[in-house]
Amino acid sequence: MSFLRVLEMLGVAVFAISGALAAGRKSLDLVGVVVTATVTAIGGGTLRDLLLDRHPVFWIADTANLWVIFAAALGTVVWSRRWRPPERSLAVADALGLALFTISGAQIAEAAGLGGVVVVIMGTLTGVAGGVIRDVLTAEIPMVMRRGPIYATACIAGIVVYLLLEMAIPREAAALAGMAAIAALRLAAILWDLTVPVFSLPDRRG
Amino acid sequence: MSFLRVLEMLGVAVFAISGALAAGRKSLDLVGVVVTATVTAIGGGTLRDLLLDRHPVFWIADTANLWVIFAAALGTVVWSRRWRPPERSLAVADALGLALFTISGAQIAEAAGLGGVVVVIMGTLTGVAGGVIRDVLTAEIPMVMRRGPIYATACIAGIVVYLLLEMAIPREAAALAGMAAIAALRLAAILWDLTVPVFSLPDRRG
Amino acid sequence: MSFLRVLEMLGVAVFAISGALAAGRKSLDLVGVVVTATVTAIGGGTLRDLLLDRHPVFWIADTANLWVIFAAALGTVVWSRRWRPPERSLAVADALGLALFTISGAQIAEAAGLGGVVVVIMGTLTGVAGGVIRDVLTAEIPMVMRRGPIYATACIAGIVVYLLLEMAIPREAAALAGMAAIAALRLAAILWDLTVPVFSLPDRRG
Repeated sequence: MSFLRVLEMLGVAVFAISGALAAGRKSLDLVGVVVTATVTAIGGGTLRDLLLDRHPVFWIADTANLWVIFAAALGTVVWSRRWRPPERSLAVADALGLALFTISGAQIAEAAGLGGVVVVIMGTLTGVAGGVIRDVLTAEIPMVMRRGPIYATACIAGIVVYLLLEMAIPREAAALAGMAAIAALRLAAILWDLTVPVFSLPDRRG
Repeated sequence: MSFLRVLEMLGVAVFAISGALAAGRKSLDLVGVVVTATVTAIGGGTLRDLLLDRHPVFWIADTANLWVIFAAALGTVVWSRRWRPPERSLAVADALGLALFTISGAQIAEAAGLGGVVVVIMGTLTGVAGGVIRDVLTAEIPMVMRRGPIYATACIAGIVVYLLLEMAIPREAAALAGMAAIAALRLAAILWDLTVPVFSLPDRRG
Repeated sequence: MSFLRVLEMLGVAVFAISGALAAGRKSLDLVGVVVTATVTAIGGGTLRDLLLDRHPVFWIADTANLWVIFAAALGTVVWSRRWRPPERSLAVADALGLALFTISGAQIAEAAGLGGVVVVIMGTLTGVAGGVIRDVLTAEIPMVMRRGPIYATACIAGIVVYLLLEMAIPREAAALAGMAAIAALRLAAILWDLTVPVFSLPDRRG
């Protein structure tokens, strides 16, 4: 349980930073920055907890998550005024947050006694939903839906790696391997523009 | 209960197809197609289950729903490469899905002991929310909000038909009549452009 | 409890009117008007109830809320055809609804035994989430995210006023003072364009 909590807290911090940076690119005010950071950081886990009927929801149960988010958001504002984060560091932060959230979400679904396909969906949803809500609130088409380097696919692949490996090696090692797979796949996808084939129909709505 | 489950599964398949086709019109990648199909197919029922505190949520309780969605989404991709679905078939599929989801949602609210107005809202929400989430994720104004052929109105009318008829005839027959009313109203609305009066205020925001 | 219920019902009516007026500015049809009014009026409280696992959700437990919304929405349509509401009255209505919902949400979180930061978040969320959902559905960037006169900040300040005062004076008086603070701050913000500093990063996404 403490391993899960550490993962989740780390993911929360990293996603809060990525949310604050997204808000900065949209020139939101400081409240908007904190809202975006919070929604990005807790959106996926909150949706997971609601769907699995886990109460109290993780950030109500452990408000340290909220203080981590506020610190990360305000730290990002202060810090980025002195030093511009290179694009690469953002991508790495986002890939790490994605990896941490996805595997911790999958583990929580597993701990709830759920089977393979629901574990995959719940892990992926924990990883991507915060970013989806962030994109909806800032009026962008969510990254999961856009054509571009693979995103949700990396989560799915990493969870499968985790589920297969934990049959052979200790759960913590399998979790680390699953996270490494997600982060590596996502970063490789950005570097080499790995994509999934597109399905295109002519738009023939009346 | 098995009658409800069959309805829901049919609605899931039909809405997954309509979601996959919407994704194709947006040229999403295959993951985006599956996500859109899934969200369209389970969004309404999931929101209903969360609001009614029904756990596990229907697709966690019965993962067959998910396999039906994946099969329907991938089948749509493969099938539409060989043969273009006529616009009319999409409209019929969507009208049927709407009818199935709306009445099954109303029946679930009824089974939870809820009264008339909540049954109407919960049925309508089960019918339309998946499409609303799909439209939000693909950055369109949801169909429920747009001016155009009646949509939510057909759901409301069909539920009222169902609630009135079940006082006189067996519940299954009333359900079928309610569904027929929804599908017929929706298709008639498309054919003859039936609309609801518009409320228009000048935009005088500062 | 009856004090809370009266607050909530008043907030529901006021927010339904503001939702109906927003729908009128978008020229939605009458169903769209009722949907927008309903979503604006119950969105925040519904999200609060789901997050706090309060079931049945307030408008399922007390359907009078729904009738108030329908009456307020239809009343707005009829009434605004004869007499145009001045922009000022809308701003006042919205500020009152915000104040009522925010403090009632904070009180509900308090009654659930939650601590300071969660009370602030839950109150703010109860106040602003309905408007956020309304804006997402009508494809606008939510007011909370936009630069402009302070909005969520007024909620946060009012909850802090309430939490501090209730240590010294009776809870009802503290609640009224908190609400007055929110409404006053929000109206002052509109009048004198009070804003929160902006965080702006160059958009350097690939």
